[in-house]
Amino acid sequence: MGIRVNGKLIVETYRDEIKNIIKDGVDRGLRAPSIKTILVGSDGGSLSYVRSQNNLCNKLGISYACTQLEQDISQKDIIDIIEKFNEDNSVDGIIIQLPLPKNLNEKEITSKISYKKDIDGLTDVNMGRFYKGDKSFIPCTALGVIEMIKNTGCNIKGKHAVVIGRSNIVGKPVAQLLLNEDATVTICHSKTTNLKEVCKTADIIVAAIGKPGFVTSEFIKKGAIVIDVGTTMIDDKITGDVNFDDVINHASFVTPVPGGTGLMTTTMLIKNACASWRDNVY
Amino acid sequence: MGIRVNGKLIVETYRDEIKNIIKDGVDRGLRAPSIKTILVGSDGGSLSYVRSQNNLCNKLGISYACTQLEQDISQKDIIDIIEKFNEDNSVDGIIIQLPLPKNLNEKEITSKISYKKDIDGLTDVNMGRFYKGDKSFIPCTALGVIEMIKNTGCNIKGKHAVVIGRSNIVGKPVAQLLLNEDATVTICHSKTTNLKEVCKTADIIVAAIGKPGFVTSEFIKKGAIVIDVGTTMIDDKITGDVNFDDVINHASFVTPVPGGTGLMTTTMLIKNACASWRDNVY
Repeated sequence: MGIRVNGKLIVETYRDEIKNIIKDGVDRGLRAPSIKTILVGSDGGSLSYVRSQNNLCNKLGISYACTQLEQDISQKDIIDIIEKFNEDNSVDGIIIQLPLPKNLNEKEITSKISYKKDIDGLTDVNMGRFYKGDKSFIPCTALGVIEMIKNTGCNIKGKHAVVIGRSNIVGKPVAQLLLNEDATVTICHSKTTNLKEVCKTADIIVAAIGKPGFVTSEFIKKGAIVIDVGTTMIDDKITGDVNFDDVINHASFVTPVPGGTGLMTTTMLIKNACASWRDNVY
Repeated sequence: MGIRVNGKLIVETYRDEIKNIIKDGVDRGLRAPSIKTILVGSDGGSLSYVRSQNNLCNKLGISYACTQLEQDISQKDIIDIIEKFNEDNSVDGIIIQLPLPKNLNEKEITSKISYKKDIDGLTDVNMGRFYKGDKSFIPCTALGVIEMIKNTGCNIKGKHAVVIGRSNIVGKPVAQLLLNEDATVTICHSKTTNLKEVCKTADIIVAAIGKPGFVTSEFIKKGAIVIDVGTTMIDDKITGDVNFDDVINHASFVTPVPGGTGLMTTTMLIKNACASWRDNVY
């Protein structure tokens, strides 16, 4: 029987660490880290996300301010606001709440964030720097996945990791991060012909395909680590890609959904903001 | 016995295609494609590279002009030249001959090329766009590898491709391009523990590690396609990563060195320039 990874516990450790780093800086007389977020309109999901980011920032000693804009704001006006934040030395991170209304060009707008303040790691420049191996911000969910794997005590170097899914914000960056840790990495997806057999050779499996309960014990080599990034809503319940009760009997570690990787994302965002702040104030 | 891929023949086909596309445009009264290259100092390798680019461009009807600068040119002066080329609507592609002298900041300089004229595909923005799946220029050697695989008649979709090596200009972009073609992709490297066994499961192997003759028949599944991107100089002879005479008995196709992927790089660069030109003039 494998171990159910306790996402809450891991997240608490990271938050304590971040809190201490900030406290240390502020005790030395430095300003607190500062995040600016831009919200267009009043989408329910975005509003609740802003609220939870705000609560976490308050707890950790980070200044968090949301600029809420009218649904019909122009492309130019929103870019002007971003550029003001880019130039403001007291701003460490800029977050655009997505999706934006259809009348706005989302790609152009997000690309205007300075890569030095792009704590979501989504701009072209940041992605380019990341894949080249230069200093960059890394998409937060992917970062959370790697931290969870490390937290099991696993030495990733030389391990065979299989990533199921190839999205820009999870599959691809997770594969790159595992490669950076010297894993041998296989990327699988809907067109993979022998998925079960490939997974069966993996020491580490990361499932990010959005197919509830898809990964069963038949995919798992005895003792593998299984990270579930699935977040499909079924009857108002968030459901992962891994059949947890089945897989836990074969794997060494499995992250549950909810209570697993999902908890890490906002904390990794804050971690990125904190790194930006350290670059700016020290 | 497998087939020795005839790089020269493939390259000729691409060149004829490019030539016809340009001729068609010029016959309609459009200006010819134009490449500007910047060479600092008089490094022998770079000079010979510029010469061969120039010859090829002449043959295909492309205007190619080299700005040769003194070894001690300042960072600012070289950036000014790049920005002038960025703004010039009659320039389709900009190439900086690398390496630059040590007193110059190569990363900063190359990053100044507009991603729309970065036909080498090396800027952060281009890399970011490439890995996100947006329109971009792709590093030329990687592009040449994929074209060679397609040229065998192989349908890449669903195949297992193993890439040995993870450099920014070959291994990583080749893996991404294979993924774009719906292959299941495994990236191996010096820390991979069971390389032979992994390669033995591959339908396509791309070797880009710089270890002469490293890949032998023991790595090869019967009928696999083997692409050799190795270019190590031994006694003034260019030598690949694949033991050709051994591997050809097991593989379906093998690219030789010399006479294989190396021939493709400059042609892919010209292909990128031609794509930029079409965007600019049509």
